[in-house]
Amino acid sequence: MLHLYTWTTPNGRKPAIMLEELGLPYTVHPVNIGKDEQFAPDFLAISPNNKIPALVDDAAPEGPLAVFESGAILTYLAETSGRFLAPSGPARFKALEWLHWQVGGLGPMLGQLGFFAVRSPEKAPLAIARFTAEADRLLGVMERRLAQTPYLAGEAYSIADIACYPWAVAATSFLKEPLADSLAGKPSLDRWLGAVGARPAVQKGMTVPAV
Amino acid sequence: MLHLYTWTTPNGRKPAIMLEELGLPYTVHPVNIGKDEQFAPDFLAISPNNKIPALVDDAAPEGPLAVFESGAILTYLAETSGRFLAPSGPARFKALEWLHWQVGGLGPMLGQLGFFAVRSPEKAPLAIARFTAEADRLLGVMERRLAQTPYLAGEAYSIADIACYPWAVAATSFLKEPLADSLAGKPSLDRWLGAVGARPAVQKGMTVPAV
Ligand SMILES: N[C@@H](CCC(=O)N[C@@H](CS)C(=O)NCC(=O)O)C(=O)O
Ligand SMILES: N[C@@H](CCC(=O)N[C@@H](CS)C(=O)NCC(=O)O)C(=O)O
Repeated sequence: MLHLYTWTTPNGRKPAIMLEELGLPYTVHPVNIGKDEQFAPDFLAISPNNKIPALVDDAAPEGPLAVFESGAILTYLAETSGRFLAPSGPARFKALEWLHWQVGGLGPMLGQLGFFAVRSPEKAPLAIARFTAEADRLLGVMERRLAQTPYLAGEAYSIADIACYPWAVAATSFLKEPLADSLAGKPSLDRWLGAVGARPAVQKGMTVPAV
Repeated sequence: MLHLYTWTTPNGRKPAIMLEELGLPYTVHPVNIGKDEQFAPDFLAISPNNKIPALVDDAAPEGPLAVFESGAILTYLAETSGRFLAPSGPARFKALEWLHWQVGGLGPMLGQLGFFAVRSPEKAPLAIARFTAEADRLLGVMERRLAQTPYLAGEAYSIADIACYPWAVAATSFLKEPLADSLAGKPSLDRWLGAVGARPAVQKGMTVPAV
């Protein structure tokens, strides 16, 4: 059995979407980060960085395996199922480059923008300006990529799209106010948001965990 | 022939260390980000996110392949050489989780600390406090991991160590002042820094590009 430890955040939804795409049965364990549940010792034993998401595969061939970091979880599920990541060649490395771009860029930078522009009661204009500009730049990079190819890795939908989708939704929802200028005039991003968002597995994954 | 586009920064050194470990011939193309060379059109064609590092493999089986994002480059070199990343099983996914942890956490958070605490002439105390605390937390996560296993992925040196090493050096060099309190009393991190830093390939990679 697969156990997904997650919460209602963009990073938490990535593996939920993937599991829905694969049609695999899994048990959801909500970890309420608003109540600091990510610091509980039994969660730290599987996710030593005290962050969701984490996955435990009870039935892994070498014995139960815990994996943290959404990018590693997506890669694990892709490699064990043989889906949404080519086994070799350009399609594989294009997917991995955009996966890493999400994990190292789009995610942390939109995350910091959310903190400084939305969540923090104290305001640091230098930080708001920095992360607004970086988010704007990143959304422009995504728009230019999606103007060339239907999906981030190229012709085929992959774990790179699954990783980026919940963050692109964050940009157009709770980050919409600071990002209003960036979001205007991005037809390729809009097209991709529509295409990815129309997938039943994506719609289902975006409701996990139900709390 | 392999072409490495890079600069004298922690992210730029990761693929240089890997190429030295593999003993592969490669041509270094310095991209001076202090002079905005990362925005030149011919560089953007291989690295659309306008960041170093990027790798071009002229001799890839399906034709020349460009890969950006250091985590994707390390994975590409590991998979094409069969070294520093197990092909399957727990050792593979432990390496990938710590690789993603570096790409999504240690790198961007120390990078922001460098901007707010060191490079920016204007000071935002809220941001300095936030990124100092996060860097401190991340170095603590690394210390606890390295108290359990010799290397980040477990028994064997892997691309996870190669990814983290230049950032751990940054923590102990140009970020030493804001991080002084965090660096004290981390014997396992010290041991690992010594072991990884003693490798000839690491010493060589840390001098690339020579400018
Ligand atoms: N790079 C990580 C980021 C994970 C992350 O930032 N998780 C957040 C929620 S979206 C979290 O658990 N925060 C709780 C905390 O930091 O204490 C990944 O992609 O899995
Ligand atoms: N997630 C990326 C980060 C790369 C990165 O931040 N590169 C910096 C130098 S360390 C850069 O090229 N900065 C120039 C710019 O942003 O314009 C990776 O790991 O490759």
